[in-house]
Order: sequence, then C-alpha cells, then structure tokens
Amino acid sequence: MGVLRRTSRDIRSDSRLDVLHAVLSAGETTRNEIAQATGLSTATVATVVGELIAEGIVAETKVTVGRIGRPTATLGMNADRGRVVGIDVAETYVSAVMFDTALNQIASVEDTRDEQDQDPDSVVEGIGRVLDRVLEENGVSRRDVLGVGVALPGLVQGPSGVSVVVPHWTWHRVELDRLRERLGLPLVIDNPLRVIATAELWLGRGRYCSSMATINLGTGVGAGIVLEGRVLRGATNSAGEWGHSLLVLDGRPCRCGRRGCVEAYIGAPGIQQTLREIDPTHPLADLELQRDFIAAMAEAADGPEPDPAVRETIARTAYYLGSALADLVAVVNPEIVTLTGWTTWALGDHLLLPTREHVREQAPGRSAHDLQLVVSTVGGNSVATGVATIALERFLADAGLLTTQIPIAL
Amino acid sequence: MGVLRRTSRDIRSDSRLDVLHAVLSAGETTRNEIAQATGLSTATVATVVGELIAEGIVAETKVTVGRIGRPTATLGMNADRGRVVGIDVAETYVSAVMFDTALNQIASVEDTRDEQDQDPDSVVEGIGRVLDRVLEENGVSRRDVLGVGVALPGLVQGPSGVSVVVPHWTWHRVELDRLRERLGLPLVIDNPLRVIATAELWLGRGRYCSSMATINLGTGVGAGIVLEGRVLRGATNSAGEWGHSLLVLDGRPCRCGRRGCVEAYIGAPGIQQTLREIDPTHPLADLELQRDFIAAMAEAADGPEPDPAVRETIARTAYYLGSALADLVAVVNPEIVTLTGWTTWALGDHLLLPTREHVREQAPGRSAHDLQLVVSTVGGNSVATGVATIALERFLADAGLLTTQIPIAL
Repeated sequence: MGVLRRTSRDIRSDSRLDVLHAVLSAGETTRNEIAQATGLSTATVATVVGELIAEGIVAETKVTVGRIGRPTATLGMNADRGRVVGIDVAETYVSAVMFDTALNQIASVEDTRDEQDQDPDSVVEGIGRVLDRVLEENGVSRRDVLGVGVALPGLVQGPSGVSVVVPHWTWHRVELDRLRERLGLPLVIDNPLRVIATAELWLGRGRYCSSMATINLGTGVGAGIVLEGRVLRGATNSAGEWGHSLLVLDGRPCRCGRRGCVEAYIGAPGIQQTLREIDPTHPLADLELQRDFIAAMAEAADGPEPDPAVRETIARTAYYLGSALADLVAVVNPEIVTLTGWTTWALGDHLLLPTREHVREQAPGRSAHDLQLVVSTVGGNSVATGVATIALERFLADAGLLTTQIPIAL
Repeated sequence: MGVLRRTSRDIRSDSRLDVLHAVLSAGETTRNEIAQATGLSTATVATVVGELIAEGIVAETKVTVGRIGRPTATLGMNADRGRVVGIDVAETYVSAVMFDTALNQIASVEDTRDEQDQDPDSVVEGIGRVLDRVLEENGVSRRDVLGVGVALPGLVQGPSGVSVVVPHWTWHRVELDRLRERLGLPLVIDNPLRVIATAELWLGRGRYCSSMATINLGTGVGAGIVLEGRVLRGATNSAGEWGHSLLVLDGRPCRCGRRGCVEAYIGAPGIQQTLREIDPTHPLADLELQRDFIAAMAEAADGPEPDPAVRETIARTAYYLGSALADLVAVVNPEIVTLTGWTTWALGDHLLLPTREHVREQAPGRSAHDLQLVVSTVGGNSVATGVATIALERFLADAGLLTTQIPIAL
C-alpha cells in the first residue's frame, strides 16, 4: 500500500468531518462556536453548515434574537434523519443499541451468549435476533435504519483475506456474507479496538489531542489508538492488540495460544486467576460468570471492611495494568490514555490511582509524567456506540458527504 | 496539542518533499521517472523541479538527445551545494560522518568514549572534537557546512522541558545550549530512534509502505516508527522506546532502572548475559568491549565448527527478539520491519531466519504472516546518516523550501 496522498477534495472533506465532530460532540452549538472549536474560518463553517442542513444531516433547532445584531441559530444533528444500530458481539453476550442520528441512545437489548458456542451460524443468528428485537420492540421500520454496525472480536484484514481471530472462530468472507444477508441492511463490520477508538475520536477525548489510546477492559483487553485525528488500523487491521503483547515471557497461558500475554493477567479471567493464586479457597475464586465475578469484586472492595484477598488482587491487577500501560507509553507515547469496558465501569475507581503511579514509575524517562490516565467519558457500551458511529460515518460517505480516504471498516 | 490541520501550502510542500525523496533515493532520475515514482502529474513535477533547480538544490547532471522527441535531462541532487555532518553519540563511541548534499558519504572520524564518563562538558567537547577533525582532515571550511545533526541517546521533549534519559545523563536546555555554542553551526539534535526512522523514510524502505518500524540493535535497542510517510514522535518525543517495553515482568535488571526490558535481553550486554547463563566460563563471556564481543560472536558462529554455546546464545537471542517484535506487531501492526545497528551488521544473517519464525508464531492471529522482516538497506552508520538527513531537511525548511508542519528535531 502506498502512502495516502491528500488533495483539495480531502481538505473539503476534513472540514466537513471537523464540523460534524464539533456538532456531534457539543450536542447543541452555533456557527461561531464551531469556528472556534475547529479553527476553520467563519466563512468555511457557514458554507459547510449550509450544505449539511440542505442534506438533512444538521438542523437549526432554535433561533435566538438578541437586542443587537443578527439572530443566532442553535445547531444540532438532525436526530430524526433516521436510526443507526450498533451491535457488540462479545464472548459472553450480544448487545444491540439503537441510536438516532445525533447518536443519542434510544433503546437497547441484550442476549447472553454461551461462551462455548462458536458455531458461525449460531453467532450470525444471535446477531440477527438482537437486531430484530431492538427494531420490533421499539416499532422502528427497517426503512428508517440508515445503517447497522457490528463489532466482531478479533476481526482482522490483510492481503490473505478477512478472518476473525477469536480462538476457535475461523470466520472468512463466507460467514461475513451470510451475516450481511441475514441482516438485510447497510452493514459495517469492524474490530472492537477500532470501534472504541472511533467512539473516543467522535465523542470523547480523541478530538483534542494528537495521540491517544483507549483501553478496553473486559474478557479480552486491547487498545484503540488514535494518532493525529485518525484511528490507527495497521497493515492487517490488527493494530492495538496490546492485550496480546507480552507481560511475562513464557508466563500464564493465554487463550490466544501464546503464553504471558497482558490479557492473561488483566482480562476478567486473568483477574480471577490472580485471586485464585492469592487465596485458592476464596468464595469468589469459583464464580462461573465473568461479569458476576467482576461485580462481586467491586462490591467486596467497596464495603466498610474490604476483603483483604480482593484488595490484594486489585493491587496486583493495578501493577500488571500499570506495567503493561508503561509498555504502550514506551512504544506509542500518547498524550492521553482512557479506560473503558465493563471491568472499568466496575473497578475503575479502585484501579485508577495505583495504576497511574505504576505507569509513571515504569515508563521510560519522563514519558508518562504528563500523561493523562482517565476513565473514558464515552459512557455506556462504547463498543456499540463506536460501531454505530462507524455505521453513521459510512452512511455519510455513501451519501457523498465524506470522501472514502477515511478507511471505514469492511 | 491540537490535531494538525493541513492546507494547500502543506500540499505544495508535500509535493516538494515527494520530489526530493524521489531524487535523493534514486541518485539519478528524470522528470518522467519522478512522476511515476510519486504519482504527481508531469506538470507538477516540472514546476517543482524547476523551482528546486533555481534554488540550487537539484541539478541537471546530463542531457540525453534521442533521435525522436525532446532531449531528456538526468536529474540529481546538487551534491556541491554544501556539506552536512551527522554525529552519532553512542555509549561507547562518538562518530562524525560528513556528506555532500546528495547524502553521499565523503568522510568520517570516530573516537571511542569511556562508557563511565557522563560529564556533560566532556560529552560536549567530545562532539566538538570529532566535528573539528572531520572538517580539518578533509579541508572543509565551516562556511560550506549547511548544518550539523547530533543524535543523543534517549533525548526526549515534553511540556516539562528537554532531557536526555540515558541513565545518569541529565541534560537540560543548558547543556544543549552549550553544545550549540561549541559547534557554532546550524544544529539539529534528535533521538537516535527518530533519526533511524528518518533515514529509512528518505533513503530506505519507508517511502514505499504505509507503516514501518526500523529496529536499532546495539548497546541499546529501540524502534523508529514510520506511519503514512511520517515519523512517529509521540507526545514527549519518546515513541519507539520498545527497548524499554517488557519482555519479562520483574525479569533481568535493565540499565534504565526497570526490570525485564527487551533491551536487557537483546542489547549487546544482554546477549553477553545470555551467553554467561549458558556457559559462565566461556572465553567470550568476559570480553570487556561490547563491539569486540559481538564481533567475536559472529566469528565463532561463522566458523566450520560453530561453538555450541554461541549457537545456543544466538538461538535464544532470536527467540527474545522474535517475541519482542511480536509485541511491536501486536500494537503497531506494521507492513515492514527492518533491522539496523552494529549488532545487525555482525549477527543479522544468523538472527534473521529464526527471528522471522518466532514473530510469525507469536504475533496475534495472522498479523505477521505478510510481515516483511529484513535487514535495512540503509547501510553504514544509519544514525549518522539519519541525523545528517534531518540537518538537510532543516536547511531546506529554513530556506523556505519545506513548511515546518514537518516536525524537525530541536
């Protein structure tokens, strides 16, 4: 692949993207505020906003008439242009979240998944079922759906084709085509890491820095990386697989087949393994469902007399997480690292401070002294939100509103 | 720091950079070949080349008159426009290499350094001395030097200031100013990792791929990373410190103060440590000078009856290197990884094949199946070459030939 060349057309598209970013993340804004936020001239903003209103993407939500000067219009995304759906296919559940075109969440449904069931037909059917349900339960016609995004764990793409690298999932083009057929709507498919990075870029901290990583903590762990306003995809769409970088050469077995991966220590099953090493007879050591385990850990840590084995487990997890983040800082050296995912929502408050200390101690030189390590401001299911955002981006690109120099999923 | 915005002026500068890259890397070329290599229109190439000739940067070296059509001019860099000097300050030596403006090497001098001597004054004087020598010994006047580049190990920059993070070197702005004064010539200073990435970008494989890492193997180890034609610098100019990412949590002590860093296993002293673990009484285990040790390893491995302990050391080093490269592939997912540095020149042939195997086995999914892992085509001292290239870039920027959207060292 050659180096991307940029043309005047790309710059025009960049201006549109910047304006859309500004409108989306502000919720309500004005032309002047957009000019301030983006650094574009007021003339450019006026032109771009005019086009976006004509195309039904942006709307004037109200007009304020002051005593002096011209009336000021409040702008927002045209929420009623249609609906987009983001589907998060995780190891233990499949979740569909419906959004309006201002990316406000309207409804969601979730099915639990049998972690052992890796039959592609049953995964495809599970995805189809949550999509059908979220539409039916909310009386939304398929005609009103502009696009659906599906985040599939471990999706990669390269010269040798498309595949899904979750252990024992070996999806290729044929399974993806079957999914496309089952859903029957404009579809984008992407990797959860690209997806959370996109959510952070459009709705979180990614717009305001030149380099950022967002860390997903759940069953699996990984990093979505944003450099200079673009999501890093890598040669085979697998950049950010920091969860499968080494913490300990020849250490704990990881479900990817390698030993000593970061994920084997700070993925939810890895955290449970740490508890088991500290106290093999601990009542939480045998909880079967991962999310129950993490919720119980949070509860035990929050009480007035915190469980010592739980506290020690959290302390070691923060050490593992901090050490692994120091590696990410060493290689990518981002300005900001945000934490997301369901382990973060449950344990983030306990992990954040000690992890920050460990990163600063262990990253090379002073590279982490000015690092901001924070919990993501993109709440809820950031995977579903992110992949719905990509579906919206794809709709805008297909409608000719963005150029395709922005690589958009599959 | 905000996201960089791009303007038409940047695009014009990009065209100049592309043309300069094409001329520099081809040595001799024509306007048509430049258009083919860069994808620019022949009209744009003609304009840019005309400007570069008028400014004395590019020259027509000969004109070929065919039987049909217009005569064809052969173009090259105007080598005699002046001289640039690249200075590589390493742990064990300081080396100055002089180039013409076509980046042909003209001369070099080298002093050994006492690894224990970390007094800034003596480092500054050591740098000044090799610069003086390379000019005097070759009868070059300071007037003819367009710029000097100095690569300082561990140089980082951030909101908290500039510092050099080699253990026990604590340089700040004052030491850098002293260096500037001692040399008395236009000066750029950069980190060896940014420097080798720049060399690879201008003169090696970096122009032809969207993502690349070049790995420096010497006393220290690190990665220069190029993404979409730009060198990744990171928030504090310390991106690519992969040598200080973890191979083994709480493993071997590293000279950075952390334990278990990649460098502690595949830096030259780390390789010697591996030999010592295999055979504590091995005659090479006690060689004092690192470069002598690596040269002796190569000799022992090349013989008709290779030394078994040496072979085992090389096998383990390839395993460590492959595992650590798999981590880099997991996070950055580059198309190409090149190896450079003096350990590579000595042992690269022995390391390359087994390392390639280990990377493919250990990188996530199929992410390394299409990875090209090769020895760099930028021969010689790529640190000196790279930092001389940055000095040339800076000269071109100061002369108004490139915009400063390209971040150029200090």
